[in-house]
Amino acid sequence: MTPGDPEHDDAPLDSADALERRLRHIGATRYHNLHPFHHMLHGGKLNKGQVQAWALNRFYYQSSIPLKDAVVLSRFRNRQIRLEWRHRIEDHDGNFDTEGGIERWLKLTDGLGLDRAYVESTAGILPATRFAVDAYVHFVRDKTPLEAIASSLTELFAPNLHEERIAGMLRHYDFIQPGVMTYFQRRLEQAPRDANFALGYVRDHATTPEARQAVCDALTFKTNVLWVQLDALYHAYVTGMIPPGAFRPEGM
Amino acid sequence: MTPGDPEHDDAPLDSADALERRLRHIGATRYHNLHPFHHMLHGGKLNKGQVQAWALNRFYYQSSIPLKDAVVLSRFRNRQIRLEWRHRIEDHDGNFDTEGGIERWLKLTDGLGLDRAYVESTAGILPATRFAVDAYVHFVRDKTPLEAIASSLTELFAPNLHEERIAGMLRHYDFIQPGVMTYFQRRLEQAPRDANFALGYVRDHATTPEARQAVCDALTFKTNVLWVQLDALYHAYVTGMIPPGAFRPEGM
Repeated sequence: MTPGDPEHDDAPLDSADALERRLRHIGATRYHNLHPFHHMLHGGKLNKGQVQAWALNRFYYQSSIPLKDAVVLSRFRNRQIRLEWRHRIEDHDGNFDTEGGIERWLKLTDGLGLDRAYVESTAGILPATRFAVDAYVHFVRDKTPLEAIASSLTELFAPNLHEERIAGMLRHYDFIQPGVMTYFQRRLEQAPRDANFALGYVRDHATTPEARQAVCDALTFKTNVLWVQLDALYHAYVTGMIPPGAFRPEGM
Repeated sequence: MTPGDPEHDDAPLDSADALERRLRHIGATRYHNLHPFHHMLHGGKLNKGQVQAWALNRFYYQSSIPLKDAVVLSRFRNRQIRLEWRHRIEDHDGNFDTEGGIERWLKLTDGLGLDRAYVESTAGILPATRFAVDAYVHFVRDKTPLEAIASSLTELFAPNLHEERIAGMLRHYDFIQPGVMTYFQRRLEQAPRDANFALGYVRDHATTPEARQAVCDALTFKTNVLWVQLDALYHAYVTGMIPPGAFRPEGM
């Protein structure tokens, strides 16, 4: 990065406010709402097979989130934090008698005509999806607990993306029915609550410039996890270079 | 995969010979010599910036191999296997008074005009490169020792690729001098020795159809590690969608 680059931001990280400004700057320059694949998805520029590929691959991310959150939870001896974090697992897994986020995602893949057993097997996902998502799980295990929490901060930027997605997909795709978009509708309430806790946590617990830099780096890492998934989808299903063994939509 | 698909191969894995045939079939259908980026690299179709991006990213792979091999070595209580495996670390790291593979790779990046400190920092590599390479290190730690050894079997297919690369790059690129290609020349001797050991090991130690399938899956995983790296290079530097923060060649 060089001066003049839109990513250039080297204000000193000497306070919680400076940290929050930098985090929001990272979101504004690196969050995957900026990715061309999302512009195409929300603008009605994809065909059904491309939307299937997106939902199929994204299922691997969704279904790994409770594993990731269980690892985060396991990093804290502080019961209060564990209680706070536990509801994330509940949000995704639901309860015995209620659905969670993973089940809602499967309604989306059902609605797109994908076989549920095939989706759940993850056999057809892009290897890049698997590597990126697994990197996220490894990150929260191997880095400090502060960095593990910080890597969740992309949720600060999720609600705007989800609003745009719900509106755009319902408007543009006749193969998308409102009932299959409940995952995103629920996240509109869940994500801000989660993001506010994580933001407060890093503001309070990153008390040196070095720790604040580590928090920023964790968020950057996470934006890469998301960006890589869309790069891989674009390369495989827009450019058309589907790697060996991956899902092939009808006609591709 | 469906019948008629070139990847389709479901002969029963009921012997070491059947295992070896399947492994060679995986190589013939999934090894990254088949990737369009390699065809461009070896056929003189890339510009200097694209070759720089390849060498820069591939440095992260090269420099992670001794870490990977140290993890493999750590999985074996059998001293004979540790002795056999240790020379791989030596091949890459050299000794105090002799260079190894990593140093030879840096001669290539030097020769391409890349700053050595920048290369060694890995700051400009593609996130997909990092995730794929790190997945390899995690794989040999988390899977069985048999699978850890099996994942090295792409070396069975490396010598042909390296011969093609040496000839192609020297013929087509005036910015490539013979002295910077010593990495590949050395690997022409090293890879067959290593591959023969690993092949003999899996032939002897995978004694059930299930274990042989796990060996095949480990090789498929490894071909994905390699393929993802070229997909990411193609997407960033041929299609031109360089992700935030990654190396930008002059003029791109």
